Amino acid sequence: MQRYKAKIAYDGSRYSGFQIQPNGRTVQEELEKALKKMHKGSLVKVTSSGRTDAGVHARGQVFHFDSPLLLPSERWVNAVNGLLPYDLSLLEVEKADPDFHARYDVVGKTYKYFLYTGKIRDPFKHHFTSYYPYKLNVEQMREAAEYLVGTFDFTSFCSAKTTKENRVRTISVIDIEVVGDEIIFTFTGTGFLYNMVRIIVGTLLKVGSGKIKPGDIPEILAAHDRKRAGKTAAAKGLYLWEVYYK
Amino acid sequence: MQRYKAKIAYDGSRYSGFQIQPNGRTVQEELEKALKKMHKGSLVKVTSSGRTDAGVHARGQVFHFDSPLLLPSERWVNAVNGLLPYDLSLLEVEKADPDFHARYDVVGKTYKYFLYTGKIRDPFKHHFTSYYPYKLNVEQMREAAEYLVGTFDFTSFCSAKTTKENRVRTISVIDIEVVGDEIIFTFTGTGFLYNMVRIIVGTLLKVGSGKIKPGDIPEILAAHDRKRAGKTAAAKGLYLWEVYYK
Repeated sequence: MQRYKAKIAYDGSRYSGFQIQPNGRTVQEELEKALKKMHKGSLVKVTSSGRTDAGVHARGQVFHFDSPLLLPSERWVNAVNGLLPYDLSLLEVEKADPDFHARYDVVGKTYKYFLYTGKIRDPFKHHFTSYYPYKLNVEQMREAAEYLVGTFDFTSFCSAKTTKENRVRTISVIDIEVVGDEIIFTFTGTGFLYNMVRIIVGTLLKVGSGKIKPGDIPEILAAHDRKRAGKTAAAKGLYLWEVYYK
Repeated sequence: MQRYKAKIAYDGSRYSGFQIQPNGRTVQEELEKALKKMHKGSLVKVTSSGRTDAGVHARGQVFHFDSPLLLPSERWVNAVNGLLPYDLSLLEVEKADPDFHARYDVVGKTYKYFLYTGKIRDPFKHHFTSYYPYKLNVEQMREAAEYLVGTFDFTSFCSAKTTKENRVRTISVIDIEVVGDEIIFTFTGTGFLYNMVRIIVGTLLKVGSGKIKPGDIPEILAAHDRKRAGKTAAAKGLYLWEVYYK
């Protein structure tokens, strides 16, 4: 058996997230279905770098799988993409050590969040950005974001449903770029808790719209209370952009 | 009654084209439904600059309608967009002369055609570009396009189903731009016959892939025979970009 590390992109609009579940179409299910066909009906299990929620997109999600087949990347890509639906695409496949693990070996991730702020709704951006046609003070948002760069207990910024005990994470970069009518947020860190990026974006929107001040962020962080942070921003603006390994 | 000229954008993926028809969702139907709601149940007829086919997109389709309401553009846009589905958006509305006609008064149109040529399928481009992951000689395509700029009988480049007797049209610009993994074709002319842009693109692809030569174009034009030109390129790459009036 050869272990493989694979990279995929998906338009999450019509998926109930990455992980297989009883109801709803999932990315994992589509991947395993395609790999099963390539392996004459044998189940090939797929292990990702982590889940993504319903509606969340990926440009660089990573997973591992084992196969008796020895193929170069290009042949994997061509064969598997021929079996996958249009909204999911295999980008590359490389041989990995037998003990490589797509989830345990992650050392960092980058997420991007796309906000469309144009006055008039753009039909082409509907599924691919979150829509916020109101004034935002980007400088204040940048100032607020600075308070979140570092190592903190992010309990205030993760879903109350989170089961993880340890909520300490390190964010190394928060970048906020204005490109035409879009605001693009980039987050890089060691790992992100459930809904963490979307709650940070929701909180930065509260700052940008003047409801809270950048200087309120340290207090929100220290409260360890989800209710203190902003709303969870819409899934459709979020992209798992890149996953880093040792 | 006030006559209005209005501009809309739509993602054509889930439409059976612009014009109302017995089966399938159309842009006209959605517009008239929204306008009817705004007019307390009275029918408001919509007349466009021309049809677009199923799957074809628009960034700047124009239509006219009459209304007893006197509203500024911004109020029309806000009110109507609140009643339209996400994949159709009203961009602007302006007062027009009572005899303005969105179809008869057209003096020109610009269409764009987006071709994605990346080696690996991109899930985010699926509905919005046509996919052609093969080598293309863009210089040869540009050379071929030059033969189509001017005033010609475009019978070879329109659907055999065309009922129009006069197939003489003037193309003033064909521009072929390479942007990353995309090839963007821009066509400006006095008017375009049924499927004309898509058949020209299909024929330019035959040139780009070496199946015919740029110098074959004049002969294809002169043949006045649809069978001599290339295939009709996919609808999903085509955008009605702008409509010009006197």
